Amino acid sequence: MNIRPELTNHQIGRSVPRLEGPEKVSGRASYVHNLKLPGMLYAKIFRSTVAHGRILSIDVSAARMMEGVEHVFTGEDVKTIVPNPYFGPAFHDQPVLAIDKVHFVGEPVAVVLARDPYVAAEAAQLITAEYEELPAVFDEVEAMHSKAVVHEELKPAGTFPDLKHLAGRKDTNIALDYHLRRGDPVAGFAQAVHVFEHEFRTQQVMHVPLEPMVTLAEPHHNTIIIHTASQSPSFVRIEIARLLGWPENRVQVKVPHLGGGFGAKLYIKLEALAACAALLAGAPVKVMLPMEEQFYTITKHASTFRIKSGVDHEGRLLARHCEVYWNGGAFADIGPRVTQKSGFTAPGPYDIDNVSIDSYALYTNRPPAGALRGFGIPQLVWAYESHTDIIAHELGIDPIEFRRRNILRDDRPQATGTPMTDAAVDAVLEKIAECMQWESGSRRKSDDPTKRFGRGMAIGFKASISPTTSVAVVNVAADGSVVLQLSTVDMGQGSDTAMAQIVAEILEVAAEDVRIVHPDTDVTPYDMATLGSRSTFHMGHAVRLAAEDAKRKLEELAHAMGFTDHAVWQPRDLFRRKYGMQAGNVIGVGTFIPEYRSPDPENGQSDKVTPFWMIGGTGVELEVDVETGHFRILRMINVADLGTPLNPRIVETQLSGASMMQLGFTMFEEMRLDAGQVTNASLADYKIPGIQDVPDAIENEIVAAHQSNGPFGAKGVGETATFGVSPAIANALFDAVGVRLTQLPLTPEAVFMAMRAKEGAASGV
Amino acid sequence: MNIRPELTNHQIGRSVPRLEGPEKVSGRASYVHNLKLPGMLYAKIFRSTVAHGRILSIDVSAARMMEGVEHVFTGEDVKTIVPNPYFGPAFHDQPVLAIDKVHFVGEPVAVVLARDPYVAAEAAQLITAEYEELPAVFDEVEAMHSKAVVHEELKPAGTFPDLKHLAGRKDTNIALDYHLRRGDPVAGFAQAVHVFEHEFRTQQVMHVPLEPMVTLAEPHHNTIIIHTASQSPSFVRIEIARLLGWPENRVQVKVPHLGGGFGAKLYIKLEALAACAALLAGAPVKVMLPMEEQFYTITKHASTFRIKSGVDHEGRLLARHCEVYWNGGAFADIGPRVTQKSGFTAPGPYDIDNVSIDSYALYTNRPPAGALRGFGIPQLVWAYESHTDIIAHELGIDPIEFRRRNILRDDRPQATGTPMTDAAVDAVLEKIAECMQWESGSRRKSDDPTKRFGRGMAIGFKASISPTTSVAVVNVAADGSVVLQLSTVDMGQGSDTAMAQIVAEILEVAAEDVRIVHPDTDVTPYDMATLGSRSTFHMGHAVRLAAEDAKRKLEELAHAMGFTDHAVWQPRDLFRRKYGMQAGNVIGVGTFIPEYRSPDPENGQSDKVTPFWMIGGTGVELEVDVETGHFRILRMINVADLGTPLNPRIVETQLSGASMMQLGFTMFEEMRLDAGQVTNASLADYKIPGIQDVPDAIENEIVAAHQSNGPFGAKGVGETATFGVSPAIANALFDAVGVRLTQLPLTPEAVFMAMRAKEGAASGV
Repeated sequence: MNIRPELTNHQIGRSVPRLEGPEKVSGRASYVHNLKLPGMLYAKIFRSTVAHGRILSIDVSAARMMEGVEHVFTGEDVKTIVPNPYFGPAFHDQPVLAIDKVHFVGEPVAVVLARDPYVAAEAAQLITAEYEELPAVFDEVEAMHSKAVVHEELKPAGTFPDLKHLAGRKDTNIALDYHLRRGDPVAGFAQAVHVFEHEFRTQQVMHVPLEPMVTLAEPHHNTIIIHTASQSPSFVRIEIARLLGWPENRVQVKVPHLGGGFGAKLYIKLEALAACAALLAGAPVKVMLPMEEQFYTITKHASTFRIKSGVDHEGRLLARHCEVYWNGGAFADIGPRVTQKSGFTAPGPYDIDNVSIDSYALYTNRPPAGALRGFGIPQLVWAYESHTDIIAHELGIDPIEFRRRNILRDDRPQATGTPMTDAAVDAVLEKIAECMQWESGSRRKSDDPTKRFGRGMAIGFKASISPTTSVAVVNVAADGSVVLQLSTVDMGQGSDTAMAQIVAEILEVAAEDVRIVHPDTDVTPYDMATLGSRSTFHMGHAVRLAAEDAKRKLEELAHAMGFTDHAVWQPRDLFRRKYGMQAGNVIGVGTFIPEYRSPDPENGQSDKVTPFWMIGGTGVELEVDVETGHFRILRMINVADLGTPLNPRIVETQLSGASMMQLGFTMFEEMRLDAGQVTNASLADYKIPGIQDVPDAIENEIVAAHQSNGPFGAKGVGETATFGVSPAIANALFDAVGVRLTQLPLTPEAVFMAMRAKEGAASGV
Repeated sequence: MNIRPELTNHQIGRSVPRLEGPEKVSGRASYVHNLKLPGMLYAKIFRSTVAHGRILSIDVSAARMMEGVEHVFTGEDVKTIVPNPYFGPAFHDQPVLAIDKVHFVGEPVAVVLARDPYVAAEAAQLITAEYEELPAVFDEVEAMHSKAVVHEELKPAGTFPDLKHLAGRKDTNIALDYHLRRGDPVAGFAQAVHVFEHEFRTQQVMHVPLEPMVTLAEPHHNTIIIHTASQSPSFVRIEIARLLGWPENRVQVKVPHLGGGFGAKLYIKLEALAACAALLAGAPVKVMLPMEEQFYTITKHASTFRIKSGVDHEGRLLARHCEVYWNGGAFADIGPRVTQKSGFTAPGPYDIDNVSIDSYALYTNRPPAGALRGFGIPQLVWAYESHTDIIAHELGIDPIEFRRRNILRDDRPQATGTPMTDAAVDAVLEKIAECMQWESGSRRKSDDPTKRFGRGMAIGFKASISPTTSVAVVNVAADGSVVLQLSTVDMGQGSDTAMAQIVAEILEVAAEDVRIVHPDTDVTPYDMATLGSRSTFHMGHAVRLAAEDAKRKLEELAHAMGFTDHAVWQPRDLFRRKYGMQAGNVIGVGTFIPEYRSPDPENGQSDKVTPFWMIGGTGVELEVDVETGHFRILRMINVADLGTPLNPRIVETQLSGASMMQLGFTMFEEMRLDAGQVTNASLADYKIPGIQDVPDAIENEIVAAHQSNGPFGAKGVGETATFGVSPAIANALFDAVGVRLTQLPLTPEAVFMAMRAKEGAASGV
């Protein structure tokens, strides 16, 4: 198309400022929290106070009688409109409101609806419930064999064919056991000169999106509109339709701007409750969580990773066994997918012929865990890169050199057998070494004798979730202006801008001139979800195909109307020639699904488990106060292979943001539990990184790379800088003060205690 | 597609109840009037009190100082954001707010914005303006040569290439002069045995949609959302973008339910003012008219039609000359199109070899006139069918028989030269004769000597506006449920239901299960407008094509996935086989533009001026009270050729509705003017038909017909029953009491006066 021949700049690779920026900074951006509808009722959830118990009675009478209260509903009310009111992406294990039993402290048991949210909150406090308490289990390893069983029976959702065989399993907390075998691990370990075995643990944390979760459901004659802060409008539509037994087209899901998601707003969260309450009440119902209730809604998996490696006399890894336990909490959410899809990368980016992986998704009586930026990878990298550092140290090999000997190079098969195509693992490693001047060994020294300098690094990698579908529509108006309809949710990551750049590049307009229609399932086509750094690649391709489809139609029309190849025309010229009118549209549609081959159920092998690999690493320089255990990050270097960046500036903020988020999870964030009760469920007690916690210097580096099957050479980047942060810091702490921490978070207390323990051991105390 | 093999009933031809019915009758349907936005300001318009004048000063100071008033804007303020703030579909003659001069009593001169609509209304009364009055002209025939010139210069919009030659014409009230010549009218009249010449006039009336006009404009960062009760969202988008100098994709126009339109809400009405006021104020602005102000906004053309016919000794029409003057009021709106597109049917549905037409769109100092159900045709039929009746009577030929001798039969060329294909003019005529038992001459007689029975009939026809474009999108979800995106406005005519039936027929689902997305120019593709009974044909085809496109894509996918032709599958089966997932969309796009050839500018001849013809006629039996002139319609029979009806029940209500609307315009509706001031601009004084005015019996008959190029054989029907009503009643009055009225409305006073005049003439008084 020759709409703007004067526009010579490429739109791809240009740091286009975020399209939604002006609306956000001027306070005009609309969020679900701002939306009010006539006759709308506010919901307040009454939650379980026990971790595991059979419901004996729920007394809502006082709440119902309170002035201003319109309705109080329990699970029994929900059953009158949804006979089987259990939902979830992988397992149908989560009731809209508790039925018969409760599975964790904080589980929704009843809901109060009132015109005034304060009335609803006060009324919820008048509700009482009696429970027969049941034995509870909180630890993921204990859950493997505990007598305390969270769910009587496994109920896989049916969406994932590979979970079907689990249906009907009873008396187990293992929602999914995933196993991979490559080569001959027994033989590999037998050949090994050295065998190392360690256990690493991570804690339960929360996403803390600054816009708390909110859903407003609006019932109509035979349809329902769900306005929701969701990362997965298409999924919500399908799942609500399934729950209600309605066709999809009677459920409309709309998502305006999102104030952060990070995986917390994926799949289905408040939508089921809002929809059922709205249908029962016959009025719009808004469910909005205060920050503390988000801790009862979705979290990141705590985990235990037992890793064992066999090494030859040259420092080559011969065999590795990985045993990973994922603490899924009371409802599986997408945990089984974390177990599998991240599980298969547990051996790390190393070229090991003999590998075994056993990865377990476990139910416990904690708040549920699901996807959080990294989707399990940070837990895995934390373990395998701490382990790598220990091995290198024990063998007396420089840790970078040790990695060089073992790293997965171009096109070599990863543990699943899928080759590491376009995965610049070695380039990332070398870039970290270069930035840190690793070889020269130049190390800062402090004048202060109470301070110790240390440096550490780590690298990790991640597959993309596969197979998944994205569909996009590009609509060109008569004046050449373009509207892009897509269900990708811009939650701050800049997807609107990146997608506009793709359309703009193809249709030869400025990215700033592309108008984006935010998700509305009536009009924006299906997208699996905005998760797992999949949008740039999957939706990027769908958008590319839609724009190319529109361009092809325009060019065909131009050709048919007698324009030569080099003629300059506007769509209106075509319409005028064809129809005698200036108006009309040209509509392009793009659908993208990458190639995928299911792994062999016997051994987990497949030559195509992912369309692309994300590679990231972090180098850290820090200074430890040996008197207190406090440490300060002096310099953090994030290095990533993200293919060819579509928007360098946004890519850089994605790297900074991801690394800072993981920094919080590494240094201090932790949900503390007492008999299943979260004791620090508020931002007063649960601290996220503030400006004082930011490293003195953050550097983000992109290695020269090209994802050959990606849209314009690009691939995902939203999670990449989370991978290496935790082990890089732990490795630097070891470098500084010689203590090895194996449990996150790496608090000053933990450092201090470890130093004391080491001194004690050294002094024989 | 084999989604529902059990669904054997056809969806076309089934009287599917209106899809939007339950929402409307339960009060849940949303209208723009219901919409409130945070920070929204209400507008009140200050209007001109003189018919024609130069603005000397406008004093808004008192209004501005009133507490609660946020802004007061005049045309000068508008010019700060829109340097050339004139709009209109055919001519850019209408200022957003008056600039330099005013053209009619009621023209918007200033606007007050306040948070409270009552404050705005009170403040508007504090505004004063001084004018230097100019000579005014109100009559359409006088306007031809009046010294009073409404606009200094003609400014055609450029959208219609055939108006371009008018640009820059000065000192004329003739916005458009349209001329058609066929055969040799001079020779034809020379051969005639009898020549008849009459003049007929119609009055100015208003549409009276029960939902008064309303627009809410919502400014965003660099976009504007316009929620408006409009029949033409695509046009509003394009015209507002043109005014603001913005690309189309920065203007989003949304239309929810409409409470009637009838042409009043076409093109651009309040949208320009709402948009400019919102941008000036930096806040959402709602402009909503009380009923009386609609009389100042858009009306139906008053007209004068001089018709002259030459007839041979066998009663065959040899030549006809038509001279039509259309009173367009102060702004052209779509009047020039009425003059042309309806103008060419002025000779009626008769087979006349020699025809001349001179049709004039005139500016006067009255409130503007535009499209109203029938688009000029009722004015024409009123004249030519009264004229026909007079000729038949004078020649002593039965009026049905006279028509039989002259009627345009199958495929004979109409005055433009376009053949009357699939136009069942004779069938309509014969059906009326049959229903009225015309030949048997059975006539009621009253026992009351003061009552006289009369019967009359008339037939008319209309072309469709051409060329026009419609685009539709059909989106099939994984469960086979369907969403239809289209910009056709369901304003009560049942288009949602009819379009759902077309989709349903093709995709083999129930019409009730198709979900319709109401117009939203971001996501519903271009449609010229909902007008002129074009939607069933044009959008019907676009929807058919979109559904067929989706079906073809599904079938291709099914074939590729190995399903045999007779296999039963759901889309989800296809997606699952192809992608391993149940989700996705199949999106079909349909664009329709009928074939069209521009008339020869010399003589107005073309073999393709319209894709189809609408034929309608009415027979009336009435009873006149000879002492008072009051008359009562005993029976009204509407007969139509509408092709094959898609939804018989809706078609019937369209016929009843159209005939009742025209009944009001025939019997009593009239805007009375005093020096340009409408003196009955309220429903207290301006009466529309009530239940007491409904004929004792209304019968609606459809002749067996098939529009071979129509979607499923259908064509438009919304206006057809307006055609014959007025002359049928006048002809029946003549039949009853022997008086011939040539000016609408046919009030009891007019009948009485005419009877008195006739008696006077007879008695020589």
